[in-house]
Amino acid sequence: MPASATHGDVATKFSETVGVGNLLTGDAITEDYCHDEALTGGLRRPGFVAKPATAEQVAALLATASEHGISVTARGSGSGLSAGARPRDGGLLISFEHMNAVLEIDTENHVAVVQPGVTLSELDERTAAAGLAYTVYPGELSASVGGNVGTNAGGMRAVKYGVTRNNVLGLQAALPTGELIRTGGRISKVSSGYDLTQLIIGSEGTLALATEVTVKLVPRLTHGATVLAPFEHFEAVVAAVPKIIGSGLGPNILEYIDNLTMAAITHSAELQLGVPDAIRDTAEAYLVVALENRDADRLEGDVETLGELVTELGAMEVYVLDGPSARKLIEAREKAFWTAKAAGANDVIDVIVPRTAMPEFLTKSREIATETGSGVIGCGHAGDGNVHLAVFQADDDKRHDLLHRIFETGMALGGAISGEHGIGREKKAHFLALEDPAKLELMRRIKQSFDPAGVLNPGVIFD
Amino acid sequence: MPASATHGDVATKFSETVGVGNLLTGDAITEDYCHDEALTGGLRRPGFVAKPATAEQVAALLATASEHGISVTARGSGSGLSAGARPRDGGLLISFEHMNAVLEIDTENHVAVVQPGVTLSELDERTAAAGLAYTVYPGELSASVGGNVGTNAGGMRAVKYGVTRNNVLGLQAALPTGELIRTGGRISKVSSGYDLTQLIIGSEGTLALATEVTVKLVPRLTHGATVLAPFEHFEAVVAAVPKIIGSGLGPNILEYIDNLTMAAITHSAELQLGVPDAIRDTAEAYLVVALENRDADRLEGDVETLGELVTELGAMEVYVLDGPSARKLIEAREKAFWTAKAAGANDVIDVIVPRTAMPEFLTKSREIATETGSGVIGCGHAGDGNVHLAVFQADDDKRHDLLHRIFETGMALGGAISGEHGIGREKKAHFLALEDPAKLELMRRIKQSFDPAGVLNPGVIFD
Repeated sequence: MPASATHGDVATKFSETVGVGNLLTGDAITEDYCHDEALTGGLRRPGFVAKPATAEQVAALLATASEHGISVTARGSGSGLSAGARPRDGGLLISFEHMNAVLEIDTENHVAVVQPGVTLSELDERTAAAGLAYTVYPGELSASVGGNVGTNAGGMRAVKYGVTRNNVLGLQAALPTGELIRTGGRISKVSSGYDLTQLIIGSEGTLALATEVTVKLVPRLTHGATVLAPFEHFEAVVAAVPKIIGSGLGPNILEYIDNLTMAAITHSAELQLGVPDAIRDTAEAYLVVALENRDADRLEGDVETLGELVTELGAMEVYVLDGPSARKLIEAREKAFWTAKAAGANDVIDVIVPRTAMPEFLTKSREIATETGSGVIGCGHAGDGNVHLAVFQADDDKRHDLLHRIFETGMALGGAISGEHGIGREKKAHFLALEDPAKLELMRRIKQSFDPAGVLNPGVIFD
Repeated sequence: MPASATHGDVATKFSETVGVGNLLTGDAITEDYCHDEALTGGLRRPGFVAKPATAEQVAALLATASEHGISVTARGSGSGLSAGARPRDGGLLISFEHMNAVLEIDTENHVAVVQPGVTLSELDERTAAAGLAYTVYPGELSASVGGNVGTNAGGMRAVKYGVTRNNVLGLQAALPTGELIRTGGRISKVSSGYDLTQLIIGSEGTLALATEVTVKLVPRLTHGATVLAPFEHFEAVVAAVPKIIGSGLGPNILEYIDNLTMAAITHSAELQLGVPDAIRDTAEAYLVVALENRDADRLEGDVETLGELVTELGAMEVYVLDGPSARKLIEAREKAFWTAKAAGANDVIDVIVPRTAMPEFLTKSREIATETGSGVIGCGHAGDGNVHLAVFQADDDKRHDLLHRIFETGMALGGAISGEHGIGREKKAHFLALEDPAKLELMRRIKQSFDPAGVLNPGVIFD
């Protein structure tokens, strides 16, 4: 903060913008605002927490912050895993908890218009009532749409419906320079200048803050089934994926779960899947495939076809889960992060590689783990090549080395450090060390073109 | 060009890069290189036409152009409609005609890796042989993938599969500063820094030039059917669209064709659709719906369901077209641009609006046309709200006024000037006059961050 403005002066300005009751400072700032769900890095205490009610207030907060050189971090539900919503000491945290309304479900244009603080579960309820669905479905349904825009969140249904960037059609966004802009809209395509919607999505709060989000809705298919197939070798799981997708069955979930993770999540969810000990003891990994259809008979036919297909592809057995078991398994899979956390994981990462490279990536990652006296176990989006690994290594330096080598391995295989969690603060050092310097320079210039004062989430993605 | 380097000096540098036989200057430059398919604006004669064979050559050409301040325009097949591939007088035109190979069809990761000059028809043949499909399908199949990346091309199948930006997973691109970068890859999602792939797509050759494109492939569904449904009123066509999409039938084509356009394209294609005179004389517009399925019986069931649905929704009749008629109709629809051109249209535009706003947009556009003594007729992507209008007004000033008011109307309804053709050179004045100045300023700064020398396609999108 420049010497010319005191903390008190700036607090006055912020509270004039959002109202005294919507600005917290000092001890009024509870611990919740000091972190997200990243497992490392601890707490950071912001100087101010503002809870705006309108887009104009967000823009005014940013203008004040830019004027006084105060860092700004946005927070939706705080469920991110890369510390993108962890504030800077003394900075401004903008919490979107009061901007949490579903503004409209437009059943003719098949879009929803929402404020950034709305949770996925709220949006899911509202769209269900209209026979529609917003299909981005990361594990944590308390996550906010605005946070999902920040990280370009993915989740299990991405194999069929894509990730956040494929399902957000338009934004209203506040620029750090204080203007409000609108990008895209209730339209599924635009070729009129650069696509600012796409640029802002995934920028982890470093370019602009979404103040309204227009998302695409699709017909909600009411009939669903889940198939669980254990395989003796992980390679066979991976080899099955292109065959299942190529079949045209159109799975909406296509996950793998390794045997250790399956043991952990079934134990913690008290899940009885009917898998006999003989199979459980020899299966290296499980494939979970969900199908959906508008028609019950067609779904039944598809399940049968899928069963035959995975059997041909070497599954040890095929279990068609009943409704409650399927829901429990998917929920348990969604909660894999919490299971890993409870088991004492020191970090959770989500490298993405071309899906055929998953076996090599996992083999090498396990070798690196062994060499460094660490553990890596996990599950992931088999259809996407997005490998979620729980990392067990308490020593910070050793873990840094381990992660560096794992990320390097993933990138060398044609992948990227993160498929959906983002770089945030915690993976930044690796990103800066491993990414092409020409791209980093270009990204820095883009950052500068949005945020000349450098106030939006400094320390996230870049230093 | 700075006085320090003569045309001859620069030509020598360029020919050292691509080889003497691959650099054209002076009279060796044929008229083909002086335009694309934009109906207005005429010819521009480049000073140099270079035909690189490798990405490295493209990067070297750009470095030389930046050094000497020479404008650079990229050309794929030259089938664009906004003059984005029309060179500048005296500038460098980079033709990708020698970089036209399908490098790989990867049947495991379901991607194709292609050079930018490859045509859609070539890619379609190659993917068909593998039982896969690249689904971006603008009318002109001689178009190049690189050109499609430039304009973010759409087409009829976008209603199911999205546009170019939804189907391109990665790029190798040459920056105007001379570096080659790789973005994305054989992976369907990344959250690791800003999405440069998405930023370059749709930038009309003003930010970077794609030198290799990785596209997503999907299973090719072998059973297809096309239904034609005349409606008495256009409003009923538009009202039918959300019901058809909401049904979950998943149409892969959902077009409307107005009665005049239908008369023109059926006449020029000598198409017999079996529509009796009584219907032809009273129908205001036709809906064309294509369905596809991996299973013939299911397709038959879907066609029946669709027939019942459009009848309920007020169709005057339902025609299930046989294979040859359906192909001819779709081809004729694809060729609507050529029909309009042959009929003497002075321009062809493709405003996008929320699909529910199509009737109001068309009514207002026709009113504006009447007021200015002009004609507008057309067809369009009903599922997307993308209205293609052939514009008949020979007077340049009157046409400028007409277009300005039509674009303004589309934007006021929540749309954009172009859904898939791009802004290019010919719609730039309207774009600059109608777009939010804050967004234009931001786009200019982004342009500057990629292209500090301002050599890439100056005069396209911006002045």
